Amino acid sequence: MKLSQTFVKTFREVGKDETARNAELLIRAGYISKEMAGVYTYLPLGLRVIENIKNIIREELNSIGCEEIQMTALQSPDPWQKSGRWESEKMDIWFKTDLSAGGQLGLAPTHEEPITNMMKKYISSYKDLPIYAYQFQTKFRNELRAKSGILRTREFLMKDLYSFSADEKSHDEFYEKVSDAYMRIYDRLGLGDCTYKCFASGGAFSKYSHEFQTFLPVGEDTVYYNKDKSIVLNEEVLNDEVLKDLGVKREELEKTTAAEVGNIFTLRYKFSEPIDLTYNDKDGKRNTVFMGSYGIGVSRVMGVIVEKYSDKKGLVWPNEVAPFSAHVIGIGEEGEKIAHELEEGAPNDILIDDRDLRPGQKFADADLIGIPIRIVISDKTLAEGKIEVTDRLTGKTELASIDQAYNKYMTSLLKTEEY
Amino acid sequence: MKLSQTFVKTFREVGKDETARNAELLIRAGYISKEMAGVYTYLPLGLRVIENIKNIIREELNSIGCEEIQMTALQSPDPWQKSGRWESEKMDIWFKTDLSAGGQLGLAPTHEEPITNMMKKYISSYKDLPIYAYQFQTKFRNELRAKSGILRTREFLMKDLYSFSADEKSHDEFYEKVSDAYMRIYDRLGLGDCTYKCFASGGAFSKYSHEFQTFLPVGEDTVYYNKDKSIVLNEEVLNDEVLKDLGVKREELEKTTAAEVGNIFTLRYKFSEPIDLTYNDKDGKRNTVFMGSYGIGVSRVMGVIVEKYSDKKGLVWPNEVAPFSAHVIGIGEEGEKIAHELEEGAPNDILIDDRDLRPGQKFADADLIGIPIRIVISDKTLAEGKIEVTDRLTGKTELASIDQAYNKYMTSLLKTEEY
Repeated sequence: MKLSQTFVKTFREVGKDETARNAELLIRAGYISKEMAGVYTYLPLGLRVIENIKNIIREELNSIGCEEIQMTALQSPDPWQKSGRWESEKMDIWFKTDLSAGGQLGLAPTHEEPITNMMKKYISSYKDLPIYAYQFQTKFRNELRAKSGILRTREFLMKDLYSFSADEKSHDEFYEKVSDAYMRIYDRLGLGDCTYKCFASGGAFSKYSHEFQTFLPVGEDTVYYNKDKSIVLNEEVLNDEVLKDLGVKREELEKTTAAEVGNIFTLRYKFSEPIDLTYNDKDGKRNTVFMGSYGIGVSRVMGVIVEKYSDKKGLVWPNEVAPFSAHVIGIGEEGEKIAHELEEGAPNDILIDDRDLRPGQKFADADLIGIPIRIVISDKTLAEGKIEVTDRLTGKTELASIDQAYNKYMTSLLKTEEY
Repeated sequence: MKLSQTFVKTFREVGKDETARNAELLIRAGYISKEMAGVYTYLPLGLRVIENIKNIIREELNSIGCEEIQMTALQSPDPWQKSGRWESEKMDIWFKTDLSAGGQLGLAPTHEEPITNMMKKYISSYKDLPIYAYQFQTKFRNELRAKSGILRTREFLMKDLYSFSADEKSHDEFYEKVSDAYMRIYDRLGLGDCTYKCFASGGAFSKYSHEFQTFLPVGEDTVYYNKDKSIVLNEEVLNDEVLKDLGVKREELEKTTAAEVGNIFTLRYKFSEPIDLTYNDKDGKRNTVFMGSYGIGVSRVMGVIVEKYSDKKGLVWPNEVAPFSAHVIGIGEEGEKIAHELEEGAPNDILIDDRDLRPGQKFADADLIGIPIRIVISDKTLAEGKIEVTDRLTGKTELASIDQAYNKYMTSLLKTEEY
């Protein structure tokens, strides 16, 4: 893609109302635009990152037999009244609205109730089980404060998966599969080495749930961990009973801050019982469906990646998440010509800065935008048969022969055989 | 995909509250599920159709230089107050909601105002123009009635494109490009031979806008047309002045009903003036940005395709829209074995009915689900070296040798070389 042909615009600074580093950098680098506190629009570069994250999640969930659907934001009260979560005293982040035709609707902050209700049409026999359905869906949460950039917003994209199993045993097997899939997802997102499965409160119906916590100075959660015993637990469950359960002593735990990047819940019959989601087993006996739910905040994960990798110069994207593979800058007549040809051969993988600006300004913007590899093709180095390749993460630059550079960095990028 | 492993379930009938044929068939065939009047969930098959439609639109818009973004549903009143569309008397389909932190928000029924407002940050010079930005975004419209299935809903997926040009001339050139791209889109959607560009009211600022109308008995609009003169106009602009403009007499026009599948508007300065979206031209003079907007209702188009192609037996999908390329049914030991191997070679292209049901029931469901090609592999015909291939649209069945069938229908489906 040619930078001159997008409306990606970089800024030296943003307004004072943006206090979160993730949103500040993403706005400055032209990835997102702030609509209002806690509400952000995704610009072309930002949407590419979101789609990359979605694809990683989609691939890993499909590989364990999950199916993608798309539910609605508008919610009728009925199933929420059955579960007891319709009243704002029970769930204080509802946005509600009035229907012209009469009645009140809510904007879904999550989808346990509507999917449980919907499954009454699709589950009647043990033959219909298990069902694992997920969606990438916009959630609405009427947060009183919104000061964490895209980490916690009033409208955000979430992957939510719901499992419907015949019994606890088959549920537990799937729960472990999701847990493993989540770790593969965080690995591919570049968060694998600092993200841990963490014991958290199970709510009223299960002893524990699990969060996936990325250790991060700006994280909102406090967790305790013991690396030797591979134990991480949320502060909310730090009590004598839990310590005994896990076989660890308080003094063996270290404390740190972390950002939640996902959670998995064993819901048991919490929703299927009040909403009456049942099935007939092999003997014709009526049983209640055993449920689980599993979330990953897609836009939140993007914010965590920004917080983890960014440096003084700007954003730094892991390979699988980056909106482009290489950021190309041509300098001088021959350099610009080759740079353009490169971009034309792989416009979906290469971002070329073809704007009429000084090289220094282009270098600064390349650092800010944070594509993994920067390639500078200048007449000066071309005279020696070399081009300059810089790794955004390490900052390491090497002069490579054109052949070397193509072999090492660009073979996967190039659709044509010209080089 | 194996039918036994999805929660696709077919129904003989749906509740009495569903009066629209498109929704009735889509619910019966397992594509969508009704949340409430005018609000539908997309199940795995339905979401595949939606994604296919989105990809066709995306490819054609990208080919004319458009860029994809993602704006938000939550809207602050400010830009809408400037354009005069915040008050419900001016726009009666608003859903509004209260923010916990104070103030009222709206759920976007369209995005002219917020994108015009946002572009103030990205447009300051003639060098920034043109910008063509589109999104696939969920719109909310508080319709008093919702009786047309997925043709008119309270929450729906829309492709909306907005153009920002320096002047009317460059706008007009782009407007024609979009018009051509739309016709390519309708061709690929299978609606090309019955969809026409139609003169419609331009509102307060332009003489005309254009709608794309698919001639259809259940269409909500009345249009007049003259095929020889290639003129189609909406009833709303059938007056002496317009007839004179178009050089056609009233008696030369025939009347029919049609469903709108897209529209394109020259907005001129309708939004850029009150919201003050301006740019500096080459001489440093301040000008107002010239705008256009261009919509296609994605879920609505899906409904129109259903209305146009479906027959007494069920749905009929055009090739590029169909959730799968082939629906395979194996009968007998060897037939089932080959059917399974086929699906395993191309699980993303082939739907196999591996359920433990009578063949007659599988045939009926295949007709209802409407995949373009049905392939029946039975021991009986295999004994003669043949398999049965049926075209869903024409109903024509032919016995083909396995080699012929693979060459004609399946080479593109098969990822492996086994057959």
